[in-house]
Amino acid sequence: MKKVCFIGACGHSGSAVSVICEKPGEYAVPAVCAGRPEIDILPFVQNLERKGLPSPKVYGDYRQMLDLEKPDILVVDAYFCDHAIMSIEGLERGIHVYCEKPAATTLEDLDKLEAACQRAAKKGVHFAYMLTTRYDPWFYTAYQAVRQGVIGEIRMLNGQKSYKAGKRGVLFHNRETYGGTIPWVGIHALDWVLWFSGKRVKTVSAIQSAMANNGNGAMEATAICLFQLEDEVAAHINIDYLRPQTAETHGDDRIRIAGTKGVIEVRGGKVYLINGEAQGEQVLPLMQPPKIFADFAGSLDGKKDCLITAEQSLYFTRVCLIAQKAADTGKIIQML
Amino acid sequence: MKKVCFIGACGHSGSAVSVICEKPGEYAVPAVCAGRPEIDILPFVQNLERKGLPSPKVYGDYRQMLDLEKPDILVVDAYFCDHAIMSIEGLERGIHVYCEKPAATTLEDLDKLEAACQRAAKKGVHFAYMLTTRYDPWFYTAYQAVRQGVIGEIRMLNGQKSYKAGKRGVLFHNRETYGGTIPWVGIHALDWVLWFSGKRVKTVSAIQSAMANNGNGAMEATAICLFQLEDEVAAHINIDYLRPQTAETHGDDRIRIAGTKGVIEVRGGKVYLINGEAQGEQVLPLMQPPKIFADFAGSLDGKKDCLITAEQSLYFTRVCLIAQKAADTGKIIQML
Repeated sequence: MKKVCFIGACGHSGSAVSVICEKPGEYAVPAVCAGRPEIDILPFVQNLERKGLPSPKVYGDYRQMLDLEKPDILVVDAYFCDHAIMSIEGLERGIHVYCEKPAATTLEDLDKLEAACQRAAKKGVHFAYMLTTRYDPWFYTAYQAVRQGVIGEIRMLNGQKSYKAGKRGVLFHNRETYGGTIPWVGIHALDWVLWFSGKRVKTVSAIQSAMANNGNGAMEATAICLFQLEDEVAAHINIDYLRPQTAETHGDDRIRIAGTKGVIEVRGGKVYLINGEAQGEQVLPLMQPPKIFADFAGSLDGKKDCLITAEQSLYFTRVCLIAQKAADTGKIIQML
Repeated sequence: MKKVCFIGACGHSGSAVSVICEKPGEYAVPAVCAGRPEIDILPFVQNLERKGLPSPKVYGDYRQMLDLEKPDILVVDAYFCDHAIMSIEGLERGIHVYCEKPAATTLEDLDKLEAACQRAAKKGVHFAYMLTTRYDPWFYTAYQAVRQGVIGEIRMLNGQKSYKAGKRGVLFHNRETYGGTIPWVGIHALDWVLWFSGKRVKTVSAIQSAMANNGNGAMEATAICLFQLEDEVAAHINIDYLRPQTAETHGDDRIRIAGTKGVIEVRGGKVYLINGEAQGEQVLPLMQPPKIFADFAGSLDGKKDCLITAEQSLYFTRVCLIAQKAADTGKIIQML
């Protein structure tokens, strides 16, 4: 029985809850904590109860919760600016941490988290990141196909995240708490770029704008990042909050990857492939990936790997923060 | 009866030939010239004959052709590096010029051409550019829809050109003759970005690579340009020669435009729109645009406008050459 505690419920902690509810004999949720006075944790508690779990204890101080409950896993899903310190507090107590992105909203916090992750890893304590879209059947299927060589060597990657803006909470309205649209939304598209290619970023330039953001304070509504990867591989991601309310889905996630032998594309929840194997475009049958939290929890004993590594989680966060700095300063930033 | 002379047949001079053949009473082709010893003009001549036109005279020196034949329209479609000087020679003789892109492969040549165009314009002599894709029903339809306000104010534009590489002639193998993939291929996508938005470019950064170019010398196989436009509008274009030979069409032209009221997209010869007017995605019925050369030729008497202006032709060329310079130097270049 793994004890799982939660701090906040601002993002994708539901990805843990769904797995916990499926296997009530394997997991327990003894306690939760809002993490900030601004966060109302009650709806999350009520949701657990509705799903048939025992009512968790609600702590006002998450450090106290960690000390007293001694959970196996900490789910960090609070204000984005607090993710790094909360994760560090967990890791330093020997607790595995499953953290919402972005893991940090400043490079200083990221440096501290990285050091804590390295110390924890030596003790077999794991950190992973809610890069949830890796476990979407379409991205997972495309990834496996690319690994099998269906498009040859990757030469260009074009990623897209497009969301409905809606009216968002105050967390999203300020850079200090939100961290910015490139780290919050863009990180998924960056994940596809770097995960599929296996390359590191040499240089990045970027632009962003908070105009037309539907009254959501300083939240950037548009951004584009341009990446020169190793081996002259080209990549970009475009990000926007301009998806109309009448669109059928919340998000329009896409990656297009052009290689020496073909082009593969994820769009609208489908995987399209053109290569020398067949005439015209094929639509690949979708594979069924594991659930992200089950993959993470199942890897903690060190007997199998999680699809997401701590190193990737931290490096991708760093690239996003550097990309944002490139946009803030109007400069190309060299990373390698 | 308009007399039309041709120099070279390296690109899209066929867009003039098709109109000429449709209206044999309105146009005549008295003469052609290869423009360079490397260019074999015979297949072009044979093609005219096959289409039932009288055999044109073939000149070795295009200046002599212009002096002796005194055409109304000169079609420039030679080695790309020669386009500017050939166009200038035509304009200075009072001949309207219909020129293949890129109009120039260096900024020095472009400056000279721009000056010649301004002098010519004062005498009612016109210059336009083979921005052929504007007249594709899908781009034309999307443009008209955007003008009508279906997506509100434009906030982001994402353009794509993807071609089959094939084995290309020596013209394409050297920067000196070819000019580069950003000016040759990218200009169409840049055209959609600037034509649809009506904005000018503030800054540009870009990357490019000649790797994986199917043995085509120094021809860049991949490129991405990132543009900050006026009013914080974001834009990018991605360009590649990686489209597999088994793809159904030569090119995979796309533009996606996100505005304050909706998103419109051209992809696969169709126009997709999501906005507040209907639930989900609509596919717009395609309009029938004029043919590009007919539009140009029909505008020469000054009574109606051509969809492509000389100013646009020259400015878009400038942006492409600056974008290429940004890629060559690894710098962000400020244009406004």
